[in-house]
Amino acid sequence: TEVKKIAVIAGDGIGPEVVAEAEKVLRRTEEVFGYRFKTEHTLFGGIAIDQKGTPLPEETLAVCKSADAVLLGAVGGPKWDNNPKELRPETGLLGIRKALGLFSNLRPAVVFDCLKDASTLKPEVLEGTDLIVVRELTGGIYFGDKFRRDGIQGQEAVDTCVYNVAEVERIVRQAFEIAQKRRKKLASVDKANVLETSRLWREVVNRVAPEYPDVELEHVLVDNCAMQLLRRPSSFDVIVTENMFGDILSDEAAMLTGSIGMLASASLGEGSFGLYEPVHGSAPDIAGQGLANPIATILSTALMLRMTFGYADAADAIEAAVAEVLDAGHRTSDIAVDKSKAISTTEMGNLIVAAI
Amino acid sequence: TEVKKIAVIAGDGIGPEVVAEAEKVLRRTEEVFGYRFKTEHTLFGGIAIDQKGTPLPEETLAVCKSADAVLLGAVGGPKWDNNPKELRPETGLLGIRKALGLFSNLRPAVVFDCLKDASTLKPEVLEGTDLIVVRELTGGIYFGDKFRRDGIQGQEAVDTCVYNVAEVERIVRQAFEIAQKRRKKLASVDKANVLETSRLWREVVNRVAPEYPDVELEHVLVDNCAMQLLRRPSSFDVIVTENMFGDILSDEAAMLTGSIGMLASASLGEGSFGLYEPVHGSAPDIAGQGLANPIATILSTALMLRMTFGYADAADAIEAAVAEVLDAGHRTSDIAVDKSKAISTTEMGNLIVAAI
Ligand SMILES: CC(C)[C@H](C(=O)O)[C@@H](O)C(=O)O
Ligand SMILES: CC(C)[C@H](C(=O)O)[C@@H](O)C(=O)O
Repeated sequence: TEVKKIAVIAGDGIGPEVVAEAEKVLRRTEEVFGYRFKTEHTLFGGIAIDQKGTPLPEETLAVCKSADAVLLGAVGGPKWDNNPKELRPETGLLGIRKALGLFSNLRPAVVFDCLKDASTLKPEVLEGTDLIVVRELTGGIYFGDKFRRDGIQGQEAVDTCVYNVAEVERIVRQAFEIAQKRRKKLASVDKANVLETSRLWREVVNRVAPEYPDVELEHVLVDNCAMQLLRRPSSFDVIVTENMFGDILSDEAAMLTGSIGMLASASLGEGSFGLYEPVHGSAPDIAGQGLANPIATILSTALMLRMTFGYADAADAIEAAVAEVLDAGHRTSDIAVDKSKAISTTEMGNLIVAAI
Repeated sequence: TEVKKIAVIAGDGIGPEVVAEAEKVLRRTEEVFGYRFKTEHTLFGGIAIDQKGTPLPEETLAVCKSADAVLLGAVGGPKWDNNPKELRPETGLLGIRKALGLFSNLRPAVVFDCLKDASTLKPEVLEGTDLIVVRELTGGIYFGDKFRRDGIQGQEAVDTCVYNVAEVERIVRQAFEIAQKRRKKLASVDKANVLETSRLWREVVNRVAPEYPDVELEHVLVDNCAMQLLRRPSSFDVIVTENMFGDILSDEAAMLTGSIGMLASASLGEGSFGLYEPVHGSAPDIAGQGLANPIATILSTALMLRMTFGYADAADAIEAAVAEVLDAGHRTSDIAVDKSKAISTTEMGNLIVAAI
């Protein structure tokens, strides 16, 4: 079998702990399915600032570019929060997205049966919620010109939001294709009653829509979407939107499932290359204590096997193993009802490995 | 008593119906408290497009400018949704905000006891939720340059988000002052890890904060705020944020109360002038049938009496009358559990008038 190369970014906070468990899972899929993975660890985020003086060192980018996929734990923490812009983990994150051409961020928001009660939403409202936010990740106000200038009313700050037709079209087509493989419903979210970029967005969506006649399309204004996610979460299938709106709505969607500690994400570019990471953050408050839940990172790894490598059998096996271990009642402290019975990060990882 | 002049914009859809009830309430406060109001109706929104060829006619603006306050029902509807930009109701809305200098939009999100169960959130999570979103209303990406241009990858669209120190400072100071009169907690929401306008915003907040030492301040990133509103809504008191984020978060906050049909809003400028309107929209689907709930508009009128005119006694009386009528079990169809017992728009208005 071909050896697949995976760049591993453990990162900050609980990153190294959860990534370690995901790597065990990778090793196990080698044994069981005969796949072969070569992992290469590389520095990124806060730890890279500390050791290399920049959140995204050249060699890190080189390691990622030479890999078939990237597995990322989590980056950031209060230690670097007051740093100047160039020395902040987020700057590294934006940099790596752009440098690797990761224009699409997929954030599935699903409800885990065992966590239904963890949501602040009523169970009957949540019932059947299974949606995915497709967020444009390398354009919009995140990457447009930003600067300060002196205005007539004193200093002013400027951010620029830019989208071109090609950028919108590639993400929108991807979202239509994802919808075709799911429940065939696409909600395109914009603010076309105010923004020019949203009007362009909507034009492109309407132009390509006839090519996907099996997909039911609705246009939803972003403010209305923030409401509808709360009112009728289960009615959404695929939501596609621009970078800033996607940042806000994907977090809202993740939180309403109650399962945020368990959600995986994928950032994709052209071709099969992708960066996979848990939706949760670096949780510096519990770092190094064996308390972190590795499931989101393990499920991100399953997503990688499925989407980048096409190893559906291994991905299925990992997802089934996670379900089995949860069904058997095992919980890390973040999701345990009885905290005294909670198991550690490593114990959870080992149980999942054993179940594959 | 001095005669106060109120410009009345009935608008589109259910606007005229709900505004009619609010006007009865105004008349009743004249009888009971001896205040005097002169109302002047003026065209705005869709109806102005139809009758005058523009959503915001010059004479409408003149009527508003010569008034002490504006009462607005609702504007917009599918009829005008595909119009070119200059002929859309929303364009009128943005225009009137700018022309009247309404830089601050106050959106209180409270839970009505009788509507607790209407929320999709669990009652125990919602318990005690009483927050207000202070949204900057005349700056940011809503009003910056917007245009199309030809780029190297085809046509592109551009929106510009601009904030100057003075604009941020006036809204932030207002939010601090509102917090001082409430539970003394302020959450300032931005995206300072990405946007230059947010970094300016945060600098201004941190500079003026020491002048309000009794207010507990937290900075919350917008994506995190979208999550925290769901997780811990009752922990928020005052939320202050820029125009676009405020649009999204205030709708999310309104929806989670389950009471969106009952929420009032105020848009304020310098001095005591203000525009008051219900949070709900023009609901064209139920227009003209006597089904609309006039309570949000009546409560917006109470807000006007309190904030623009300082008539706290009358405002208190209106709010108490609304509570009394609801406590007695009267419901319009939108909030009725048993729809067959629902009363009409006019009946609800009359009951509230009688209770003042
Ligand atoms: C850390 C931040 C720059 C980032 C973003 O806004 O994209 C994060 O919120 C995310 O969603 O991955
Ligand atoms: C209609 C639209 C332009 C408006 C806005 O985005 O400000 C509306 O959503 C609101 O919140 O008042």
